[in-house]
Formats: sequence, structure tokens, C-alpha cells
Amino acid sequence: MQGDDVLARLDKYINQTGIKLIEEIDTPAVVVDLDITEANIRRFQDYCDRNGLHLRPHIKTHKIPAIAFAQVKAGAVGINCQKVSEAEVMADAGIADILITYNILGAEKLARLRRLAERCTLSVTADNAHTVEGLADTMKDADRALRVLVECDTGAKRCGVQTPEAARDLAKIIAAAEGLSFHGLMTYPPAGHNTEADDWLARAKTLCEESGLACPVITSGGTPDMWRAENLSSVTEYRVGTYVYNDRSLIAKGVCTAAECALSVLATVVSRPTADHAVLDAGSKTLTSDLLGLEGFGLIPALPDATISALNEEHGYLDLSRSVAKPEVGDKVRIIPNHACVISNLFDRVHAVRGTEVLGTMDVSARGCSQ
Amino acid sequence: MQGDDVLARLDKYINQTGIKLIEEIDTPAVVVDLDITEANIRRFQDYCDRNGLHLRPHIKTHKIPAIAFAQVKAGAVGINCQKVSEAEVMADAGIADILITYNILGAEKLARLRRLAERCTLSVTADNAHTVEGLADTMKDADRALRVLVECDTGAKRCGVQTPEAARDLAKIIAAAEGLSFHGLMTYPPAGHNTEADDWLARAKTLCEESGLACPVITSGGTPDMWRAENLSSVTEYRVGTYVYNDRSLIAKGVCTAAECALSVLATVVSRPTADHAVLDAGSKTLTSDLLGLEGFGLIPALPDATISALNEEHGYLDLSRSVAKPEVGDKVRIIPNHACVISNLFDRVHAVRGTEVLGTMDVSARGCSQ
Repeated sequence: MQGDDVLARLDKYINQTGIKLIEEIDTPAVVVDLDITEANIRRFQDYCDRNGLHLRPHIKTHKIPAIAFAQVKAGAVGINCQKVSEAEVMADAGIADILITYNILGAEKLARLRRLAERCTLSVTADNAHTVEGLADTMKDADRALRVLVECDTGAKRCGVQTPEAARDLAKIIAAAEGLSFHGLMTYPPAGHNTEADDWLARAKTLCEESGLACPVITSGGTPDMWRAENLSSVTEYRVGTYVYNDRSLIAKGVCTAAECALSVLATVVSRPTADHAVLDAGSKTLTSDLLGLEGFGLIPALPDATISALNEEHGYLDLSRSVAKPEVGDKVRIIPNHACVISNLFDRVHAVRGTEVLGTMDVSARGCSQ
Repeated sequence: MQGDDVLARLDKYINQTGIKLIEEIDTPAVVVDLDITEANIRRFQDYCDRNGLHLRPHIKTHKIPAIAFAQVKAGAVGINCQKVSEAEVMADAGIADILITYNILGAEKLARLRRLAERCTLSVTADNAHTVEGLADTMKDADRALRVLVECDTGAKRCGVQTPEAARDLAKIIAAAEGLSFHGLMTYPPAGHNTEADDWLARAKTLCEESGLACPVITSGGTPDMWRAENLSSVTEYRVGTYVYNDRSLIAKGVCTAAECALSVLATVVSRPTADHAVLDAGSKTLTSDLLGLEGFGLIPALPDATISALNEEHGYLDLSRSVAKPEVGDKVRIIPNHACVISNLFDRVHAVRGTEVLGTMDVSARGCSQ
């Protein structure tokens, strides 16, 4: 597809505000540059296309249906959600292929999952027999089998079966269950160990196939290792979330540059209590306490030697002792946050811009979808 | 007032859900025990009444108008907000006396502040002349002067003028400004140094009075030191937020017991990848990354030897190596979070209970009010 199509799609969803300049936006606020967003989408889609990988973006980073559309229109096979409620928002918006990488448990979620499966191509993951039992009980008389992938712990110590043999055993339970179809293997690999994870999945796939079970999809992911995904031989699909916006943690890992960060937080200097300190109106309610191993709570490209040294809920403390520039009360600054995804869960809308042009706001429709 | 009146007030705002048992609530979810909430409100109101202090609760902890009403009805002189948008929600709900402890800057916020001042008794704080100038420009032709308090940094290194002399100087600017009236001094004192802050404020008050400026209100605050507020001689008003719910950080400081914590997070065990680990469906999108100096991301009273050792956005990792009890996939647990206030900013509604009785949900109407 052409970039113009993406543009047309995204701009359709923008609410006009009448604001013309970024400096006019009331703070604290989230600003998303759509030019950078689209370039990020295009760059990794091209990479996946070149390397024969299906791309399935995780919507947790943006939580905005229009951006999910742009990702699918650019060539993604579908999207990845973590929660049934997120998937509902995306299905409402017309996204056709959704993978929920979570053990879905409990009567209410399972009932919603069943209804969701009736209106999109839905896949889920499971790492235990109890979850599979609940899924099977829910889907047993459905018109269409629910696709279930086995979640594998390939070293990241999140969820997942612990061995390739356990993956095969759970695959057999899924394949035998009425209403379910075994659809493959899923992992979130440990950072820097994508190829070891690939080997693990290769062994599990062989074991499954020896039991007569095909693995149509082997899905791995992670933005930090995304530029090394071409080395994976078993993996058929790659999932990334943060790549769409990028953030300070990914700059630190060498995955992107500051110029490739699409999301920033606009904040105002509200106090200059001392010569070397400023206080911003962006605290942990805006930036979150996520450090991700970094020092300070964000990067201000215009004040490269200033450090956001601490946060309270509504205050960010800016250490200016090493900074030549000393912003005054009322000045606005743009912050590249440590972690973009968690910011999207704090704001009901973001301000869409292209460079210095302000387009309007976009609703973060899947914000707060916890269940 | 009688406890029954508070009860009547709160129950009026509850939305029926049909859920009867806490175990039926879909997870992750926030559960607020109204019996404990009301007892917390009553206990500190009684303390303030006994000690001749006005109580002005900060609504940041609950963000729920009905609970603000309960606080005012119990005897609070008004409420404290941090943002204009929070104050708008509370004024919409009929709260009559609101203090915004923030430097309000920028055309949009100032215009909203002006409208807000027309429909409630409003006070704000300022720590710099630029802020006072904006306030004066906004209020110069108003029917009623806006009350402005000088924010004082008494050692906490947040916002605030740095010396009692600077407080007096700013007070004079406020008093001389058309549309504003100097209303007193405000501080958020450093933890454990409430009495030093009180001395600081006494000196500033004397300086103001020597300049012919009365200080009707001297307001300090902080839940960690709230049981030592009777030692303050200058302070006329005390502001507390977290006391309404309490949390794990306050248990650690000896301010409350676990039984006095009104807010908990209900989570489900979604995976048991190994014998010593469980994964909960409450991650940083639910509990936040706030540690507040503690080890682990929350306390599970039913599993006192289990540690919530790490979080991803949608996963909480439970170390069961020292726990005799080993919850299974599908089991639900209640978590007392490290920091209650930040949880309230993540959920659009909470489930109100009284002990084991589920009453329904309450809307967190001021959630996400960042501006």
C-alpha cells in the first residue's frame, strides 16, 4: 500500500480541536507525530516483508483503532491484544484478525470471548490445562473452532510451559478438545536470546509434528530484538508493540533514535524554586514510575543536560545543575518518556501532529481495558 | 453527623451490578470497603476536631465525588484538589469549598479557573510572581476576589518559596493585585519534619503580619505524619489524601494496620509456570511501578509469605518459594497496593463492598483529570 492511504485512514479518525500550534496545547498532554508513526510502521513492515515474516503488532502501545488499521493496511496479518476488552474495542472498529496472548479465565471473560469469536478471526494462548478446559467448555458447541496456541516460556520467566515436551502435551489436550483447534506456539523470548528461543520452539514444533499435530503459526516478538528477527528459522510471525512509537528505553538499547520517537509528553514548567531546579506539571500520573533500568524519568531533547530526577503524582523535578538552558515558569517542554506503552494507558486522548502542524486529537479507545 | 448519614450518602451513588460475591468480580479490579473508608474518615476527623484543626482532605486518593461528600459531611471544611479539571468534577457534584494546591498557568486553565471561581468558594496557591500575574490578569474584573495562598518549601523540595521572607514578599504582591486576596500559607512538609515546617510557617506568618497582612489559613498536610498534627501550633488546617483508604506504604510507616486498608486489588492467578511461581493478571497497568521504598509490589494478606517480585504491564509475578499456601490457576487474591492513589487513576470504576457484601460500583469521576 501507499503511504497516502495510511494518511487518509488516520486523518479520518482525528477530532478537530481548533488548536494550531503545539505550544497552545494544554498540559500535561500526549503528543503523537503521525509522520514518525507511519514511518515506524512502514520501516518494520518492510523488514518483515523482506525476511518472509508475518508481522502482528501489539496494540498495547497505542490502544487506538485507527493506528491498528494503519498497521494492518501496511501489511500486518492482524493484531495482538492482551485483554478481551482490548480485543472487543478493536473488533468494534472492524479489525478482522486478533490474537489475545493471555490465559483467559473466569465465566465473564469466557462468555465475552465466545461472543468475540463470532465476529472476528480470533486466536488465544494457553499455558495450562485448566485454561484449556475453560476454553473448551465455552466453545464446545460453537460453529467455528477457536484457535489456541501454546504459550512457551523460552527463558523470559513470564507465563508459559517450561519444556518443549510440556508444549507438545498441552497441544495434544487442545487438539483433542471439542470447539478448539491447536494453532501453534507462542513465546515472548528473553531479551537478547531470540535465537535460543527459536531453537526451543523448533524442538517443540518437531515434538508436536511427531504427535501428528501441525504448527501453522510460531509467533515470537519483542521490539528490543526486532532488527535481529531475520535470524529466526522456526518463527513464522513476529509481534512488536513499542516499535510504533519507540521510547527512551529503545534509544538506550540502540533500537531507534530520538528522531524516531513518535510519542512525547508536553509539560509546562510550573515552578522554579531554586536556580538549579524546575518543577514540571508532568509527574507519575503522566509519566509513570517506570524506569526500565534508566536514570531519570524521561528525556527532553531541547534540554539534553537536564535530568528528570524524581516524580510525585503531579510534579516532575527537573535538575538543571548541568544544563546551560534554564527554562522559566510557563515554558513548555517535550519529553520522550522512558516507556511509551504505559503513557497510553493514562490519557483518554492524544494530540496528533505532523511535525509542527497540529491536526487534532485521537481517542485512546482501548485505554483502561484491564479485563 | 452520624455514621448512618455517611452511609446514606455513599450508597446513593452506587451503580447496581447484580454481583453478590467478591469472588464473582471480574479481574483485575479495585475493591473499596466502605465500612473501612467511613471509619478512616471518622477517625481522623475526630482527631482534628479534638485538636482544633480544620481538616481538608485531598481527593487525589479516591477521585470519587460521593466520598468527597462523605468527608465534608463528616466535618471537613472543604476539599483539596491538584488540578482544575479535578476541581471541576467536584464542583459539578456540588462540593462548595475547594483549594487547588497548584500554580495555575496558561490561558486555557486560567479561563476554566475563572468560571470555576464563579460557582464555588475557590482558593489556589502560587509560589512565583509569574503565576500571580496570570491569576490577577484573569480575575481583575471578577465579582469576588480569588483567594491565593503562598506555597512554601519547608524542606520537602517540591514547589514553594524558599524563605519566610520570600513568602512575605509574594504575599504582598498577591495582596496588591486586583481580583486576588491573600489568604495565607500552604506547605507540604518533609516527612517526619512537620514541627520544623510549623516553625518556618510561624516565622512567615509573623513577617506577613508585620507587613499588615493577616494569614487566615495556614495549611499543612501529609498522611504519614497525620497522627502528630496536634503538635503544630501555627497550622490551622491539615490536608490528607491517602488516609481515606490507607495502603501498604502507610502500614510500613506504622500509620495504619492492614485491617484499616480500604482499597485492595482483586487479581486472578492466570499461570503457575513452576512450583514456586504464580502469575497474576495484575501488572503495572493495575498496580503501577510505585515501590515507595518497599520490596515488592503489594501485600497479599492471605499469602503473607508470598512476594509480588516483579511486574510487566499485564502480569504480576508471585514468588511462592517461602509460602506454604500455593494458589492454583483460577484462584483469586486480594492485594493491598503499595500506593493507593495511583491505582485510582487507572480504573474508571471501583467495586464498593462492606465486608463480604458487594454493593455495586462507584464511578471514579475525576480519574485521568490531568489538566
